[in-house]
Amino acid sequence: MRNIKLVLAYDGSEFSGWQTQPGFRTVQEVLEQAIAKLTGEERIRVNATGRTDAGVHALGQVVNFFSATQLAADVLVRAINAHLPDDVAVSSAEEMPQAFDANHDARRKLYRYVIHDGPVPSPFLRKYCCQSRHVLDVDSMRQAAECLKGRHDFHSFETEWPNRASSIRTITHLAVNRFGDWIWLDVEADGFLYNMVRAIAGTLMNVGRGYWPAARVAEILRAEDRVQAGPTAPAQGLFLVRVTF
Amino acid sequence: MRNIKLVLAYDGSEFSGWQTQPGFRTVQEVLEQAIAKLTGEERIRVNATGRTDAGVHALGQVVNFFSATQLAADVLVRAINAHLPDDVAVSSAEEMPQAFDANHDARRKLYRYVIHDGPVPSPFLRKYCCQSRHVLDVDSMRQAAECLKGRHDFHSFETEWPNRASSIRTITHLAVNRFGDWIWLDVEADGFLYNMVRAIAGTLMNVGRGYWPAARVAEILRAEDRVQAGPTAPAQGLFLVRVTF
Repeated sequence: MRNIKLVLAYDGSEFSGWQTQPGFRTVQEVLEQAIAKLTGEERIRVNATGRTDAGVHALGQVVNFFSATQLAADVLVRAINAHLPDDVAVSSAEEMPQAFDANHDARRKLYRYVIHDGPVPSPFLRKYCCQSRHVLDVDSMRQAAECLKGRHDFHSFETEWPNRASSIRTITHLAVNRFGDWIWLDVEADGFLYNMVRAIAGTLMNVGRGYWPAARVAEILRAEDRVQAGPTAPAQGLFLVRVTF
Repeated sequence: MRNIKLVLAYDGSEFSGWQTQPGFRTVQEVLEQAIAKLTGEERIRVNATGRTDAGVHALGQVVNFFSATQLAADVLVRAINAHLPDDVAVSSAEEMPQAFDANHDARRKLYRYVIHDGPVPSPFLRKYCCQSRHVLDVDSMRQAAECLKGRHDFHSFETEWPNRASSIRTITHLAVNRFGDWIWLDVEADGFLYNMVRAIAGTLMNVGRGYWPAARVAEILRAEDRVQAGPTAPAQGLFLVRVTF
């Protein structure tokens, strides 16, 4: 069996997230079905780096799967895409050593959270951002975010989830940018807790609209208490951008 | 009654075009209903510059309507948007002289046709472009388009339509651009025949993929015969960008 790595993008709007759930349309399911149809194998199991939630988008999700197919990588890309619905697309395929695991071998993941704070929401981008009713002060959001960089216990930014051994993670890159009415928050880390980027986004939006001072975020981080942080920002603003191995 | 001009954008994907048709969801209908709900008037009739077809998008459609509302322009924008579905948005409102007519007073309209010719269609932009299965030669498309500039009888690029007095129009600007795998064709004219930009796009795509030499387009124009030109390119690649009065 060959171990094949795929990079893929999807519009999460009409998916109930990544992971297969009986009765729901998920990215994992449509991808596994497309590959199985192509290779004629009975059951294909894809293993993803990030199990994105309902409504979350991906530009560079990475998966691996084992298959007996002998198709060359570039042929695989075209053939899998021909079997996928048009809200998912594979951008590259590559044969990897047998030991490669898209989930365990990921060293860093970059997520982007997109916010629009202009007066008129865009009919074209409404599904790909969070619309803020307040104009946000990006300088104070940036100042507030500073304390989150590095290795910390992010329990305050984690939706409760059983079986989680530790909530210590390392944020290797964090930036808040603005262009016109668009703000995007980039967070790269060695791993993410459940809803972590969306909790950070909701917290920084509270700072940006002047509801909280920037210094509040360091207190929230130290509290290790989810109730202290801001709301979980909506899924539709979140993109899994890139995975580094 | 005040004569009010609106500029609006819409994602045409889920509309059966601009014009009201019983039993179909159209932009005109949702806009008229939103305004009527807001002003409490029984019937609002909006008059648009361009009656875009099913699936065609707009960034800067212009309409005017008469209403007794006394709301200030900026309040109107917010209030109408609050009553509109999220695939339509008004970007500005302005009170005009009584004689202003968004349709008859338009001197020029700019349409953009967007084509993607990369190997992997984008899950995010699939509804906003035409996917070409061939890589297109933009230089030959540009050379072919040259003959269309200026005043001509564009009967070869017109879907048959009764009651059309003349098919002579003046193209004041025409450009073919590429950035990466994206190609866009801008056409500005004093008026457009039915499906004219889409017929030009379909014709230039035949040139771009090498099916026709660039010189063929001048022959097609002279023939004044729709059968000679290329196919009508799909609606989803077309945007009404700007109207000049």
